[in-house]
Amino acid sequence: MPHGTTPDMKPASELTWRSRYDGVRGRSLALADPLSDEDCGAQSMADASPVKWHLAHTTWFFETFILERMEARFQPFQPAFRILFNSYYNGIGERYPRAKRGLLTRPSMDDVRAYRANVDARIGRLLADQAGNRQLASLIELGLQHEQQHQELILTDVLHLLAQNALFPAYSDDTPLPAHSVAAQAWVAFAGGLAEIGHDGEGFCFDNELPRHRHYLAPFALAERLVTNGEYLSFIEAGGYRDPALWLSEGWDQVNLLGLTQPLYWQRDDTGNWCEFTLHGVQGLDRARAVTGVSLFEADAFARWSGARLPTEAEWEVAACSDACGEEGSQERRLRQMFGHCWQWTSSSYAPYPGYASAPGALGEYNSKFMLNQYVLRGSSIATPPGHARASYRNFFPAGARWQFTGIRLARQ
Amino acid sequence: MPHGTTPDMKPASELTWRSRYDGVRGRSLALADPLSDEDCGAQSMADASPVKWHLAHTTWFFETFILERMEARFQPFQPAFRILFNSYYNGIGERYPRAKRGLLTRPSMDDVRAYRANVDARIGRLLADQAGNRQLASLIELGLQHEQQHQELILTDVLHLLAQNALFPAYSDDTPLPAHSVAAQAWVAFAGGLAEIGHDGEGFCFDNELPRHRHYLAPFALAERLVTNGEYLSFIEAGGYRDPALWLSEGWDQVNLLGLTQPLYWQRDDTGNWCEFTLHGVQGLDRARAVTGVSLFEADAFARWSGARLPTEAEWEVAACSDACGEEGSQERRLRQMFGHCWQWTSSSYAPYPGYASAPGALGEYNSKFMLNQYVLRGSSIATPPGHARASYRNFFPAGARWQFTGIRLARQ
Amino acid sequence: MPHGTTPDMKPASELTWRSRYDGVRGRSLALADPLSDEDCGAQSMADASPVKWHLAHTTWFFETFILERMEARFQPFQPAFRILFNSYYNGIGERYPRAKRGLLTRPSMDDVRAYRANVDARIGRLLADQAGNRQLASLIELGLQHEQQHQELILTDVLHLLAQNALFPAYSDDTPLPAHSVAAQAWVAFAGGLAEIGHDGEGFCFDNELPRHRHYLAPFALAERLVTNGEYLSFIEAGGYRDPALWLSEGWDQVNLLGLTQPLYWQRDDTGNWCEFTLHGVQGLDRARAVTGVSLFEADAFARWSGARLPTEAEWEVAACSDACGEEGSQERRLRQMFGHCWQWTSSSYAPYPGYASAPGALGEYNSKFMLNQYVLRGSSIATPPGHARASYRNFFPAGARWQFTGIRLARQ
Amino acid sequence: MPHGTTPDMKPASELTWRSRYDGVRGRSLALADPLSDEDCGAQSMADASPVKWHLAHTTWFFETFILERMEARFQPFQPAFRILFNSYYNGIGERYPRAKRGLLTRPSMDDVRAYRANVDARIGRLLADQAGNRQLASLIELGLQHEQQHQELILTDVLHLLAQNALFPAYSDDTPLPAHSVAAQAWVAFAGGLAEIGHDGEGFCFDNELPRHRHYLAPFALAERLVTNGEYLSFIEAGGYRDPALWLSEGWDQVNLLGLTQPLYWQRDDTGNWCEFTLHGVQGLDRARAVTGVSLFEADAFARWSGARLPTEAEWEVAACSDACGEEGSQERRLRQMFGHCWQWTSSSYAPYPGYASAPGALGEYNSKFMLNQYVLRGSSIATPPGHARASYRNFFPAGARWQFTGIRLARQ
Repeated sequence: MPHGTTPDMKPASELTWRSRYDGVRGRSLALADPLSDEDCGAQSMADASPVKWHLAHTTWFFETFILERMEARFQPFQPAFRILFNSYYNGIGERYPRAKRGLLTRPSMDDVRAYRANVDARIGRLLADQAGNRQLASLIELGLQHEQQHQELILTDVLHLLAQNALFPAYSDDTPLPAHSVAAQAWVAFAGGLAEIGHDGEGFCFDNELPRHRHYLAPFALAERLVTNGEYLSFIEAGGYRDPALWLSEGWDQVNLLGLTQPLYWQRDDTGNWCEFTLHGVQGLDRARAVTGVSLFEADAFARWSGARLPTEAEWEVAACSDACGEEGSQERRLRQMFGHCWQWTSSSYAPYPGYASAPGALGEYNSKFMLNQYVLRGSSIATPPGHARASYRNFFPAGARWQFTGIRLARQ
Repeated sequence: MPHGTTPDMKPASELTWRSRYDGVRGRSLALADPLSDEDCGAQSMADASPVKWHLAHTTWFFETFILERMEARFQPFQPAFRILFNSYYNGIGERYPRAKRGLLTRPSMDDVRAYRANVDARIGRLLADQAGNRQLASLIELGLQHEQQHQELILTDVLHLLAQNALFPAYSDDTPLPAHSVAAQAWVAFAGGLAEIGHDGEGFCFDNELPRHRHYLAPFALAERLVTNGEYLSFIEAGGYRDPALWLSEGWDQVNLLGLTQPLYWQRDDTGNWCEFTLHGVQGLDRARAVTGVSLFEADAFARWSGARLPTEAEWEVAACSDACGEEGSQERRLRQMFGHCWQWTSSSYAPYPGYASAPGALGEYNSKFMLNQYVLRGSSIATPPGHARASYRNFFPAGARWQFTGIRLARQ
Repeated sequence: MPHGTTPDMKPASELTWRSRYDGVRGRSLALADPLSDEDCGAQSMADASPVKWHLAHTTWFFETFILERMEARFQPFQPAFRILFNSYYNGIGERYPRAKRGLLTRPSMDDVRAYRANVDARIGRLLADQAGNRQLASLIELGLQHEQQHQELILTDVLHLLAQNALFPAYSDDTPLPAHSVAAQAWVAFAGGLAEIGHDGEGFCFDNELPRHRHYLAPFALAERLVTNGEYLSFIEAGGYRDPALWLSEGWDQVNLLGLTQPLYWQRDDTGNWCEFTLHGVQGLDRARAVTGVSLFEADAFARWSGARLPTEAEWEVAACSDACGEEGSQERRLRQMFGHCWQWTSSSYAPYPGYASAPGALGEYNSKFMLNQYVLRGSSIATPPGHARASYRNFFPAGARWQFTGIRLARQ
Repeated sequence: MPHGTTPDMKPASELTWRSRYDGVRGRSLALADPLSDEDCGAQSMADASPVKWHLAHTTWFFETFILERMEARFQPFQPAFRILFNSYYNGIGERYPRAKRGLLTRPSMDDVRAYRANVDARIGRLLADQAGNRQLASLIELGLQHEQQHQELILTDVLHLLAQNALFPAYSDDTPLPAHSVAAQAWVAFAGGLAEIGHDGEGFCFDNELPRHRHYLAPFALAERLVTNGEYLSFIEAGGYRDPALWLSEGWDQVNLLGLTQPLYWQRDDTGNWCEFTLHGVQGLDRARAVTGVSLFEADAFARWSGARLPTEAEWEVAACSDACGEEGSQERRLRQMFGHCWQWTSSSYAPYPGYASAPGALGEYNSKFMLNQYVLRGSSIATPPGHARASYRNFFPAGARWQFTGIRLARQ
C-alpha cells in the first residue's frame, strides 16, 4: 500500500479535525509500543523501511506540505530531516538513499518522538487559527490518509524484520490475524455489461481512483470467499511449485532463482509440521485461514491450477459495489472477506484511468510515475487502519512482492 | 515480434500452399545472403539470436509440429537438433541455454541449409500426399507466420550485432528505411463509445488477438503521423533525458543506470554531427524520418514532454479499422504510417483478452505465460514481411526494449 | 584485524588473570559508552558488524571455548546464541548469515550486557577454582587477544556506520587521531642478508606468526615516517586517480567501477575545502597527519607515483626489530610511527610461513583458510588496544579494503 | 599463460631468423586447420578469445612493435585493426571491449589471413634488409614468444568453446593428451638452504623471471609425478567437495556458488560412468592420466586431503634445476612429468622478484600490473609449443581459473 494521492475537500469543525488528527497520529505511535528502539531502527530489505523512518517520514509530510506552506514564520524542526525523511519526491529536492534507512541510528527514536510532538503542536495551532480553511482541511486529510498507508507498512515491515531473526520473536498477540473460512468454495455470478468504476465523488479518495468512467464487462463470477491455507497446501502437495505449465514465465524464473516452495512465512518445524510466522509469532498452520504472503505469480498459478483465474480490478470493484456483499456469518450466497483480511491480487496492470491527470506540484509528482510493471490489489487487510478501505481503492505492487498481507480471490467467466 | 500463436483453418490447393511455403521459406534464406557464415553465427546479447539459429529454429518448428505428427515413419534429421533449436517450449523437453546460442559453431551454416532443404522436401511430400487436409493447412500456415516473425527478428538482431562492431559494417543497401514525414503534426479525432476489438474471424490470426470483444472508449485523438527524428532531437536538446518529471520511475532508473542520452543507434561523428547506424551503415541523421530504437520509457517521456500521451491498444485498433486511414501522398487529414515504418508503443500492458483460452498442448503453452510486465506495440515496421501485418496484430516487448524498430505515435483526449 | 589465533601458555596468579580479564572485557563495554542502543545494533555493510554483535560474539568465544569445555555442568546462557554469535567456525555448527547481523534487534543490548555479565561471573569462578591450570590460562589469553581484535573492529565499524549518516555524527572527542608528522621524508637503510622473522617465542602470539624461520633479504631502505595527508593530496592533484600506468590492473578496475577519487573518508565542504570524517566528526583536512582509509591499490599507486614501492612484510619486521626504531620526538634518523598510528600495507600476500601448522579442532580451523588473495599489514593503529601490537603481528585484508585505519610507509631498494 | 614479456638480445643470421619466424607463425595457422571459420569466430567466455582474434592480435603485435618502429614508410594494414586487436596496452591507445571479441564477425577469417600474410611479408623484408640488427632480433624473438603463448591459449580456448556445445565435437585426434602414470607415488627430498632462482641469463626469458636472486629454503620434498585422475577420483568419492575443512575459504565459496563436484571437463555418461571431454572429444576417464582442469582451490584441497601441500614456486624451480629430474621411462627415483603434461599450481602468489623493473614503454606496461591476486604455475602442458618451456618460466592465473591444462604436483616438508 505504497504511495498514492491527491486531496479532496473536507470541511468540518476544528474539534472534529483535531480529534481525527490526534486519533490517526496517536495510532502510529501505538503501533510502536510493542517494539524496542532497536526494533524501530532496523531495515530488513530495501523495499521495507524502519518503523522510526515511517514515524518520521509521515511527520515530514505534514511539515513539508502544510507547515511550510501555511505557517507564518516557518522554520524546519531540523533542516537535515528535510533530506533524511523525504521518500521519493524529486521535486522536493535531495533524498537519502532508500536502502540505507536502517543506518540512520541518529536521530534517535526519542528525537523522532520529539519531532512528532513538535509538528503535532504546530498543526494544532494552525487548526485553531484557521478553522474552516478548506485547503488546510484537504491537506490534513491527505496527510492522515498517507499516514494510514504507512501504518499498514509498519506492520508488514515489522513482520518481515522479525522473520529474519532466528529467534522468531512475536510482535504482539493483540493484533488480528486473517479470519477463518469454513464454508466450501462457491461462486457469485455477475451479468457484466457497461458499468462505471472509480470513486464516485463522496468522501476522500486518492487521485488514482479518478476519474470515474465507463467500462464494459463480460459476464463473470467471483468466489464467495478467499482461498485458504488448506487449499493452498493442496496446491503445494500436488506439485504446484514444480510444474512450469502453471506459471507465468517471469514467475517460473522467480520460483527457480529463489528456490520457492511455499508462501513467504510458511516453514516446517523439526517434526515436519507446517507452521506460519505471524505477528503472534510462529503458529501451527491454520488450514481454515486465508492464505497470505503470496506473490501475483503464486496467486495466478494457484488460480490456473484451480481451473479458475484472478479477477480484473473492474470486476472486483463492480462486485464490491453490488448488493452481492454479505456479512461473514450470513447463510446467503454472498461475497465475503472482501475487506479486512488480505489484499486480493487482480490481473490488472496498474495504469491511469482514462482522462487521469496528476495533481500539479510535488504532491502530484509521484503517482503516475509508478504506473508501470505493477499490478493492482483490491480490498484491504488485517493491517489496514479502520476506515481506510473502500471499494474503489487501488493498492499496487510488483508481481513478485510477497511481504504484504496479500491473498487470493478466484474468478471465472 | 516474439512469439505468439495458434492456428486457424486455411483450405487451399496444394499448389497454392506449395507456392506460399516456398516463398516464405525462401525469403528467410535470402535475408542471410548479404551475410557471411561468421555473421550468421554470432549472438550480440541474450535477447537476440544468431541468424543461423533463427534459420534452424523455424525449421525445427515444422519438423516438430508437422513432420513428427503427420509423417508415416518420422525420423528426426538430427536428434541433437531437437534440443539445440527448441526455443522455450517446456512441454517439448530440454532446451539449450538461450544466452549460449552464439557458441553453437556446429552445426555449421551448411549443415543448417541442409536441414532446411531436408525438411522442405518432406513438407513438400506431405503437401502432395495430403492436399486438402485442413489440419496440415493450419499448421503450415502457423509455421509460416512463425517464420515471418523470425524474419523480422533476423533483421533487428543483425542490426544489433553489426552495431557492436567498431567497423560499423552495413547489412545491405537494398533494405528499406523508415519513410520521411514532411507534414506538420496534426490530429484525427475519434468519438469513442462501445467498440469491438480483436480479430474478426477472416484469415489467419494469433490466439492473442482473440476473442473479439467489446470495449468502451472515451473520445480520443491520434496523431496523423509518427514522431520524427527531428522532433525527438528537440526533446533531447530541451534536456528531456535530464528531467525526472518526464519519466516513469523505472524508466528514470534505466536512463541513469545505462547513462542513456539518445535512441539506441544514434551517435555523433568526430565533428559532433548526429548520425544513425542503420541497415545501410552509418548515415547522417535524417530529421524527417520516423524515430526508432526507443523504449516505451522514451516514448512515454517524449509524449509527456509534448503534452500528449501514448495511445492504448484499443484506441489504436479502433482508429486503424476506421475510415480515417489514408495513403501517404494524400492531402486529406488521415492517419498515415500506421503500417510498414515502425512498431508503435501503446500504454497497454500485454494481457489476455476477456475469455482468452490458450490452445492445448505445446503449441499453446507459451503465449499467455508471457502476458505480464510487457507492453503492446501496434502496426508493423520496415522489417515486417509483406502480408504479415494487420490491424488486430499484437506485438509486445518489455518496456525497456530498444533494439526493435520501435517508434512513437502520439494520442490525446 | 580480523581473525587469527592459537594459544600459547601463560602461567600467572589468579589475581593477575582476573585483573587482566576484567580490564580487557571492561574496555569493550567502555567503547560502547558514547553510543546509543540503536547505534550498537546497526550494520553498515556485510564486512562490518554491529557493536552489539561484537560484544556478544567475543562473549560467545569464552562461553564456547572455555566454559563449555571446562565447566562442570555447563548450560548455555541462551541456546540460540550459539548460532547467532558464531562467526565462521564451520566446525562449531550452524551460523546466522553475516550480512544480516544488523537485523538482530533481539536480543537487545541489555540482553547482551546480561550475557556478558553472566559469562564474566562464570569465568571468574573458573579462575578462582583452577588457578594455575595452564590450559585455562592459554585459552583466556587467547580469548582476550581475540576480544582486543574486535575492539579495533568496533571502532572501525562504528566510524563506517556513522559515515553513512547524512548528519555525520561524531563518535567521541576522547579517542586519539593519527599523529602529525612535520619532518621531511627521509630514508633508513638496511643491509639485508639472511634474517629470521616470526615470533621469537616469548609472550603470546597468533599461530600465523609461527614458526620463526630464516628469510633472505636484499638490501633495502624504509621511509622514516608515514605518508601524510598533504603528500597524498599532492598525488590526487597530480592526477593520480586518472593515470592507469600507476595502478595495479585490479585497482584500476576498482577506481573506475566505484568512481574513486580520494581516500574513503575524505570529502569537500560547500566551499570546496578538503575535510575528513573522523571519530571526532568532520574536520578540516590536516595535511601533517598520516593518511588513512586507503586500499592496497591506493597505497601501491601512491608508492609508484613517488618512485618508491611498498615494503615486504619481512623487510618491515626486520626493520622493526632492529635498533633503527626511535621515539617520535627524537632528532636522529630513525623509523618513527611504526606502531599506534595506522596499519601499513605491505606488498606481501598473506601466506603460511614455511612449516606452518594449524592448531587442531575448531580453534585452528580458520586461520589458514583465509591465506589467499589477502595482503599483510604491519604495525598497529590508533584503534589497536594498548599492549596488543608487536613486531611480528600479521594483520591482513583484501587489497581493496579501505575502512580500516590503513596507511602507507614507503620502501625502496 | 597470459601475458608476460620483455626482450633479450638474440643475434643470428637472417636465414635462421626467417626460418624460426616462419615456423612459429605457420604453427599458429596450422592450429586453426581443424576448425571452420565459424569455430574461429566464437568466444565462449570473457576470459577466452576467439581463435581469429588470437591470430590477428599476434599479428598486431608484430605490426605495432616492429613494423611501426622500423619500417621506412609505415602504413597500417587497416587502421581499425589498431584498436580491434590491441589487447590491454593502455599506453597504445583505445581498445575494443574484451568480452565482445566474439562479435567481430568482420573482419573475416580470410581478412585475418590476408593481414597475417601482409605482415609476414613485411617482416621478411625487414629481416632481409637489417640482418644483424640486434634490436630487430630482440623484438622478433619477443613477438614469437608472445605468439607461442597465444598458441597455448588457442587450444585451451577452443576446448572451452567446444565444451559448451551440446554436440561435444572433437577438435582433432592428432593433439597429444596428458601422459599416463603407472608408478605408485613417491617422494624426492631436497636439502633446502640458500639458493638462487630466476633466469640465469642464457637465452630468452620474460621480465618476470628476472632478476635472478637468492632465496632461502627449508628442506622439502616433491612428489615424483603428477596426481592422476584416479587419485583425484578417490578424493571425490571420499566426499572431498563436501568437506569445508579441506578448502580455502574463497574456494569453498566457489564450490557452493557454482555447485562444483568435479574437474571442469569431467562428466558422467547416461550409465553413470565417468568421462572427460578432451581435444579428442568425449572419452572414458583414464585413471592413469594426470588430472587437469582444476583450480588452485581444488589442487590445494586435494593436497590437504592427501596430507601434503602444494610446492612454492621456489621449491619447484630449485628442484627442476637440480639433477633430480629424470626421463619418463627410467627406473630411478626422479622427478618426472615436470614439463609437457600440465601446468602445476604452486602456493606462491604472483609477485615481482626483488629488484624487478618493468621495461619502459608499452612493452613493459603490463607485466607488473597483473602481479596481484594471481598464483604462479610452473612447468608446461600438452598445449605448450615445443621449445617454449623452461625451469624459470612463471605462468600465472587467478586461483579459481580452471580452463587451462592445470594439474597438481604435491610437496611436503
